[in-house]
Amino acid sequence: MADFSGVFPILATPFRDDESVDEASLRRLVGFMADLGVEGVTVLGVLGEANRMGEREREAIVRAAVDAAGGRVSVIVGVSHPGTRATVELGTMAAELGADALMVAPSAEPVPSEARVAEYFARVCAGVSLPVVLQDHPASTGVHMSVPTIARIVGENPGVDCVKAEAVPSAAKIEALSAALPRRVPMLTGLGALYGQFDLEKGSSGYNTGFAFPEVLQAHLAAWRSGDRALARRIWAHFLPLIVFEQQPGVAVRKEILRRRGLLASGAVRHPGTALGAGSAAQLTEWLEFTMPGVDIRRPIDVAAIVGA
Amino acid sequence: MADFSGVFPILATPFRDDESVDEASLRRLVGFMADLGVEGVTVLGVLGEANRMGEREREAIVRAAVDAAGGRVSVIVGVSHPGTRATVELGTMAAELGADALMVAPSAEPVPSEARVAEYFARVCAGVSLPVVLQDHPASTGVHMSVPTIARIVGENPGVDCVKAEAVPSAAKIEALSAALPRRVPMLTGLGALYGQFDLEKGSSGYNTGFAFPEVLQAHLAAWRSGDRALARRIWAHFLPLIVFEQQPGVAVRKEILRRRGLLASGAVRHPGTALGAGSAAQLTEWLEFTMPGVDIRRPIDVAAIVGA
Amino acid sequence: MADFSGVFPILATPFRDDESVDEASLRRLVGFMADLGVEGVTVLGVLGEANRMGEREREAIVRAAVDAAGGRVSVIVGVSHPGTRATVELGTMAAELGADALMVAPSAEPVPSEARVAEYFARVCAGVSLPVVLQDHPASTGVHMSVPTIARIVGENPGVDCVKAEAVPSAAKIEALSAALPRRVPMLTGLGALYGQFDLEKGSSGYNTGFAFPEVLQAHLAAWRSGDRALARRIWAHFLPLIVFEQQPGVAVRKEILRRRGLLASGAVRHPGTALGAGSAAQLTEWLEFTMPGVDIRRPIDVAAIVGA
Amino acid sequence: MADFSGVFPILATPFRDDESVDEASLRRLVGFMADLGVEGVTVLGVLGEANRMGEREREAIVRAAVDAAGGRVSVIVGVSHPGTRATVELGTMAAELGADALMVAPSAEPVPSEARVAEYFARVCAGVSLPVVLQDHPASTGVHMSVPTIARIVGENPGVDCVKAEAVPSAAKIEALSAALPRRVPMLTGLGALYGQFDLEKGSSGYNTGFAFPEVLQAHLAAWRSGDRALARRIWAHFLPLIVFEQQPGVAVRKEILRRRGLLASGAVRHPGTALGAGSAAQLTEWLEFTMPGVDIRRPIDVAAIVGA
Repeated sequence: MADFSGVFPILATPFRDDESVDEASLRRLVGFMADLGVEGVTVLGVLGEANRMGEREREAIVRAAVDAAGGRVSVIVGVSHPGTRATVELGTMAAELGADALMVAPSAEPVPSEARVAEYFARVCAGVSLPVVLQDHPASTGVHMSVPTIARIVGENPGVDCVKAEAVPSAAKIEALSAALPRRVPMLTGLGALYGQFDLEKGSSGYNTGFAFPEVLQAHLAAWRSGDRALARRIWAHFLPLIVFEQQPGVAVRKEILRRRGLLASGAVRHPGTALGAGSAAQLTEWLEFTMPGVDIRRPIDVAAIVGA
Repeated sequence: MADFSGVFPILATPFRDDESVDEASLRRLVGFMADLGVEGVTVLGVLGEANRMGEREREAIVRAAVDAAGGRVSVIVGVSHPGTRATVELGTMAAELGADALMVAPSAEPVPSEARVAEYFARVCAGVSLPVVLQDHPASTGVHMSVPTIARIVGENPGVDCVKAEAVPSAAKIEALSAALPRRVPMLTGLGALYGQFDLEKGSSGYNTGFAFPEVLQAHLAAWRSGDRALARRIWAHFLPLIVFEQQPGVAVRKEILRRRGLLASGAVRHPGTALGAGSAAQLTEWLEFTMPGVDIRRPIDVAAIVGA
Repeated sequence: MADFSGVFPILATPFRDDESVDEASLRRLVGFMADLGVEGVTVLGVLGEANRMGEREREAIVRAAVDAAGGRVSVIVGVSHPGTRATVELGTMAAELGADALMVAPSAEPVPSEARVAEYFARVCAGVSLPVVLQDHPASTGVHMSVPTIARIVGENPGVDCVKAEAVPSAAKIEALSAALPRRVPMLTGLGALYGQFDLEKGSSGYNTGFAFPEVLQAHLAAWRSGDRALARRIWAHFLPLIVFEQQPGVAVRKEILRRRGLLASGAVRHPGTALGAGSAAQLTEWLEFTMPGVDIRRPIDVAAIVGA
Repeated sequence: MADFSGVFPILATPFRDDESVDEASLRRLVGFMADLGVEGVTVLGVLGEANRMGEREREAIVRAAVDAAGGRVSVIVGVSHPGTRATVELGTMAAELGADALMVAPSAEPVPSEARVAEYFARVCAGVSLPVVLQDHPASTGVHMSVPTIARIVGENPGVDCVKAEAVPSAAKIEALSAALPRRVPMLTGLGALYGQFDLEKGSSGYNTGFAFPEVLQAHLAAWRSGDRALARRIWAHFLPLIVFEQQPGVAVRKEILRRRGLLASGAVRHPGTALGAGSAAQLTEWLEFTMPGVDIRRPIDVAAIVGA
């Protein structure tokens, strides 16, 4: 079984200014993450603007990510699709391209049914060869999965090896799932790390989210695991203004940070997504300086030094 | 300019029992429609389960439909996609495959904006070579377009040659659009013909919907155009129980009728769509018999004879 | 136990042109229904614009309805409220004013939970003295109740004496509930009678809806109960164009019909509800004439004569 | 004209453990806020569980709040209602009871219309005598108001004296509104202060939100107004973990803090709202200690001392 403990950044999909896929930046992004020593990366999630991509582009992205990862980090691929069969096909394609795991969320149907959601996962797990990260993110899917339904899905499908716990209140849901799941599976924190410290305290095994400074999440998790709760809290609290800044809707904020970090050639977002306004860009400059004065973000940042640990 | 007056059935996508695409049935379906003398067919709409299809399947379906149409009827292809660029790419593919027009609906964004919806249509129209049917169907898209916004889109984009008017109350909206549009474009009735007669009275130019007996819609429109309002109403009213029966959610009802008409080899619906229950299938049998006793629905039905005209 | 078989019209709330409550019209409306011989009436439902009323107005309406009913027909009062305690208080007020039953639907919460919906009904039933009609109408509530949840609510709460089955596909859901409910409770058809005949065939015990000609629903139900399926279908099919006309959103259509029937002094709808446009009013005139030529709708209509039975 | 610059806490509605209104706690809460020197308080907002209250309770709450305020702070009353006329009636009641201003948000209608939303505000402003705070909070209302629509409402209605800017991204919307409004009206920050510092930087005039330590918001605003941006940022950043903790859905977190502050006798939330779990309560304890070690929160906290200013 794959081990989904640790830090698994969700990657933005780099575009050129004309919105075409920028593979060179993607490879740079994957390489940067691998150099940081994260456990894996996820492509084609919400932050990856997966819903605005064509299938050939999806294929190219998976191929490039797997190649750039070079076995140093695992590659998780978002394959959620309103059609069950299409989800399986996307999952099969990902497997053939060498991906290590799949991220799967259910889709909203006109007549919602938790039983049918369970069927969806059963069919997907039966149809694919890779481990599955069950994504519980009602804010983007419109699907609310109850604790018993998630427990049932985990119980019935050995392939579900991880829960990405993004249904608020996430800490309370992680706590409830810990008691209800028929077998232990890691639960990872998403939502841009907004509730990261609270989730860890209730049993989260790490991060699977797009915060643009994964080295912060690594340091946070390491401090937590070492038993130094005070340090863990200080780290998370120190970067919380940036975490909150990124909560503003649209993926443009994060892409701009990644651009400033030298990872993306352009911060372009695909239409109809919105670009970052000049006012927000100026705010970002000030907040980066406030949070880590004088730090060169083009290199991995030294979290301990920044928080004064 | 393409002429979007007349009857343009929305086609179901035929599947085998294992949910694979059944091209033979699709060709039979297109041929049947062409033999009826409809003005065009639309593939890959909501009824076509477009949201559950992969892109290679989409391509195969367009190719088969265009080939089977053989120039006898025009082929409209649904290409709506949450990404503007992806919509253009799907539209380009459809054009290359020989399609005659595109059906385009906007997608819901986290922060709705009518201005951005207008941009979406502007970019799509600028990027594709085929005429566009603007689909106004908030029930499936979650996007509400005001009359001024639709008027603006039509005014700014010569490529928008038709409005598929599916925002309730549709008759009142058609009436309002007739007064507001900066140039005359046909408006077509959808929603399974539920408000068909009311729409015609307010200016609809015909049908673009999936009712499983398009010959009824043809007879209805012909009677209306001939000035025989009483006959038009009788025809529509006569078949209204079937139209209402088809309103029940899910595409399974229509696929079952098409199967009984000998057009589909299977009424299979793709998961997570729901199959027709035994109870509903039995009801359908009774209602077909009630509406057209003794009629062989495997051939085009004689509407005049059935309504006693 | 109350018997919820039969026809229970949902009443519009009559307003004067200035939107103030018109009690005289309300009494006339109740009297008209009682004279028709319906089993009961429901006030303060969706058609009654309950969500736009103040509490003192609610009280006045219940008082007037109970008084006008004079024991000849039972009075059901809509008391759904986002707060459980407020629901109980509205129910207590209705009981004190002499109502016979309550109509209760759940409200959407930020984090949906079927368990909490069941709690809602349990607390309401424990807190009120009147029988409860459980309204299952996701289109207005945003709450989807699964068959097992409804079965659980009915099983745990003896006070739930009826299910108003308005979740589409309604006929199939009635069929499923018939098999799943732990005790037999009547299920009534709503949704403006759109699927009335289909519902009856699957076990509906009658009507609880706002179609503006309840005598049609009475004749329909009587024909069905007498075993004359063909007559039942003819009646329903004959009036289906009017039923569909009323499906157009907003309560203005029905209020205009009731005004023409001499029951309401004004068809006024409360803002922000929309008034009937001139175009729709003209269509209504034609369709009433088409459906029942020459008939004086200010008196109870003779359904048998109209359909030629 | 009323001046809506400053800090205007949104008040929770105190309940006893049996969910009945606890007026004594409400008076204590108002008195505490007046002693802090805030500019006003808002009752019957989302945090006040207004949607779960009966009208007699609303009346009692306004009466008690006005009485307890004793002219020391202004009292703003939430009066949003799906019915326009009912909104006016609630506003009239508030005026008669001595309130100083009204908070008004639009309601979602089946067919959304920005034109109708503008009508709603026009009618409300014409019907009430008090200044109106226009609340732009799509997360709770489901209504998205574009910048031009808000500008039109402000331009057409002199009674709209303030915009509560709670549509994300709030800082960018405040910036856009600043440029678009036809006259200057204060814009206040809500959303629990989550984006408070970002909003201030773009033109927010203060706070109108329910964060349980209003003295923090006062200190923050004072530092900002004094021109000490660094101090403002430090204050906001210091308390951000608590602000984020309160973002977890449900009002239970805030009510528990207010209880611990000695202001509420009970942290009870009305059903179907959810109570605070034991796990979350324990986390709260730790986070209060982390944020302000050793501080007695039963008295106004010394923000300068806590942040080391």
